[in-house]
Amino acid sequence: MSAGTTSGWLAIAGLGPGDEALVTPEVTAALAGASDVIGYIPYVARIAPREGLTLHPSDNRMELERAVHALELAAQGRRVVVVSSGDPGVFAMAAAVFEALEAGPRYWRDIDIRVMPGITAMLAASARAGAPLGHDFCAINLSDNLKPWALIEKRLRLAAEADFAMAFYNPRSRARPEGFARVLDVLRETCGPERPVLFARAVSTPREDLRIVPLGEACPEMADMRTVVIVGSSRSRIIERTAGPVLYTPRSAVEAAA
Amino acid sequence: MSAGTTSGWLAIAGLGPGDEALVTPEVTAALAGASDVIGYIPYVARIAPREGLTLHPSDNRMELERAVHALELAAQGRRVVVVSSGDPGVFAMAAAVFEALEAGPRYWRDIDIRVMPGITAMLAASARAGAPLGHDFCAINLSDNLKPWALIEKRLRLAAEADFAMAFYNPRSRARPEGFARVLDVLRETCGPERPVLFARAVSTPREDLRIVPLGEACPEMADMRTVVIVGSSRSRIIERTAGPVLYTPRSAVEAAA
Repeated sequence: MSAGTTSGWLAIAGLGPGDEALVTPEVTAALAGASDVIGYIPYVARIAPREGLTLHPSDNRMELERAVHALELAAQGRRVVVVSSGDPGVFAMAAAVFEALEAGPRYWRDIDIRVMPGITAMLAASARAGAPLGHDFCAINLSDNLKPWALIEKRLRLAAEADFAMAFYNPRSRARPEGFARVLDVLRETCGPERPVLFARAVSTPREDLRIVPLGEACPEMADMRTVVIVGSSRSRIIERTAGPVLYTPRSAVEAAA
Repeated sequence: MSAGTTSGWLAIAGLGPGDEALVTPEVTAALAGASDVIGYIPYVARIAPREGLTLHPSDNRMELERAVHALELAAQGRRVVVVSSGDPGVFAMAAAVFEALEAGPRYWRDIDIRVMPGITAMLAASARAGAPLGHDFCAINLSDNLKPWALIEKRLRLAAEADFAMAFYNPRSRARPEGFARVLDVLRETCGPERPVLFARAVSTPREDLRIVPLGEACPEMADMRTVVIVGSSRSRIIERTAGPVLYTPRSAVEAAA
């Protein structure tokens, strides 16, 4: 890390979907140089304790408090890593840290802050299933309390009209269990019952589970809080194979002459 | 890699945006075990030659031939890595390999094929700039010969109406130099002249260059073939800092009570 006006620094790092073989060397090096690691309990649990390193696990829904804490520690000269699963810039801690930075005291703007990308859930899931995001696509966070249902529905309908493949993060939440059923209803209406859907749970971990079904057979119970859901575009295809089906979207929007 | 019905295997691997510190250990291990590496010339140039490894660099626009070659070698029992920059599932080689697989001989479907995700350009660029993709977003490939202009324009207008942040791959191509100027025209019309745009060139390499401008000041010459372009949503914000501006999109679609 380059030196800021204090000796402290703040890295907002992506740990990838779970497998240590998907953690970048950049993130591994930052963790090795850190004095403090801050994050949601299960992500901090992935960091090996060592002398000189303080772990600060915190509960879910504490994003903004966590961000403020990280900025305070870095401003005091600590070497802080905020850990997210996946990529910190995709529905994770990076935006929370910048919200806190913008609202916080002016001197925080001198802190050496660096975002370190990671393998985000939709790309890990896509790789496992084939290449469903091989053509134009969108990513939508279905987490409750971040946006009204009317906006989610509007985005779903526009994304379907644009014929994007779609990746959904946080499809099911405790606070809004009926939300994902409504999402599936809108998708069936706009994309038809044959459109393939991938439910990818805990990709790259021992509990990984992948399932590809037509929209007509998709039901909310196929997703939980560790699932990313990918709905193909009208061009997405399935190849049957010995080792299991491949779901992919061809590169071209039109029939290829190849 | 698990054993297929032949001893060969095929990995379609993402090398990330350029910095070796952004290559996952999974990809590094696959390359260490490979007998053949196949890919576009500048990507194969990143692989160190060694005894027992055959490098097969090929020209751009040879995706399908490259995919067929890789499948043929793996079916013969070779240990093949097809390299892409970024993530192989995002506008890269994974879809091309599955297109070739689907069109190819039936016995190819027994080949042990694995896609290995990487840090894709938009997420590397997003991390460098802050967190412009911190809320719902879409990714659109502007490469020529893959889709008609009418479809690109339709997607741009729908994405703007959905208020997605947007990431554009391959904004400028030799075959269609005027295309990106038309894209900027549509974006100015739909998003207004104040909307921030990030031009991120060759992120994580010595030639990295980042530039954030309002749409009203954006011009096609700010992008080349190594640039990814990110246009913020209506909620995206800039924080001025000592070390340069941060571009980010808050987590919430509505004004936060936070």
